Amino acid sequence: MKVYLAGPEVFVPNAREILDRKIEMTRMAGFVPVCPGDLEAPASMTGKARGLVTSEINERLMLSADFIIANLTPFRGIAADAGTVYELGFMCGRGCPAFAFTNTTAGHFERVKDYYDGEVKADASGALRGPDGLELETYSMADNLMLDGAIENRNGVIVRHAAAPGELYTDLTGFKECLAIAARRLLG
Amino acid sequence: MKVYLAGPEVFVPNAREILDRKIEMTRMAGFVPVCPGDLEAPASMTGKARGLVTSEINERLMLSADFIIANLTPFRGIAADAGTVYELGFMCGRGCPAFAFTNTTAGHFERVKDYYDGEVKADASGALRGPDGLELETYSMADNLMLDGAIENRNGVIVRHAAAPGELYTDLTGFKECLAIAARRLLG
Repeated sequence: MKVYLAGPEVFVPNAREILDRKIEMTRMAGFVPVCPGDLEAPASMTGKARGLVTSEINERLMLSADFIIANLTPFRGIAADAGTVYELGFMCGRGCPAFAFTNTTAGHFERVKDYYDGEVKADASGALRGPDGLELETYSMADNLMLDGAIENRNGVIVRHAAAPGELYTDLTGFKECLAIAARRLLG
Repeated sequence: MKVYLAGPEVFVPNAREILDRKIEMTRMAGFVPVCPGDLEAPASMTGKARGLVTSEINERLMLSADFIIANLTPFRGIAADAGTVYELGFMCGRGCPAFAFTNTTAGHFERVKDYYDGEVKADASGALRGPDGLELETYSMADNLMLDGAIENRNGVIVRHAAAPGELYTDLTGFKECLAIAARRLLG
């Protein structure tokens, strides 16, 4: 079985090293790894054209995969990386199993509450809202309900692990646990 | 044709009013609207169970739709709402056309640069990175390349509109333009 390895580690300085570690760990777990960077746009392509071709290549890689393991660690803010979330949706839309990990144990509600510096109040109907009026989800989930729901409703898991601050995108403890769970559930 | 109307307007205080306006505009454009909230989890369900059922209901609604119009306006930070991005990926994974709008004209690169207070430097290979070492995409796109790429490679568009700050999630100018473009391309 082929697994698409999605995550924001493609943006770290030693991305190649981290991806290679993930690839090696995936093979050890009995799966065939597929990840962004396996194929790249021609070096001559720049700007927006390069972005469009990269998107096309990554979608083609996803189409070759049977399931996904997504790194949902919050990225430049309180939510998971948008590219990774897109890829999670893409694979779920295809009907594939999904597993995920996040390198923070703080849940979605706690992070949004922190974003509002704790200034969260119930409205007349009891819904909790920030000072901007936007409602908070209160489902004890790792991220937006569509992400947690997608994964759990597909018999997947979201592994939460408290990585050291400097290792938010390089700690692969949660990834390893995802591989072990996926192996039990999909290769069993 | 049925269109799934994705966006963070479900979190605003007058969500029902905004969704009803979107539904009405969608019908006027010649499409059948499908949107989160059309079906809801039983009132008795609370907590995580409610979140899981809501996710399942929204996925079922998406499966009934032929394409998507997503509101990618940045939400609680620099990127589009994670739930909306998941839904965009889901519909694209199913092979459906996709259109989007955002109520800011600032692109992804500008927003990430602002996030780093302008402290962005090129590394030895020429890649631009923030003080945390994370690379910036420089593709002149509205959001992460997987979002823009998905939409543009499917012959869709991302309409950028400068809404007033107080109307970031209620201004439907870009939505109206998406409907008009989708009608020309899909109903032609």
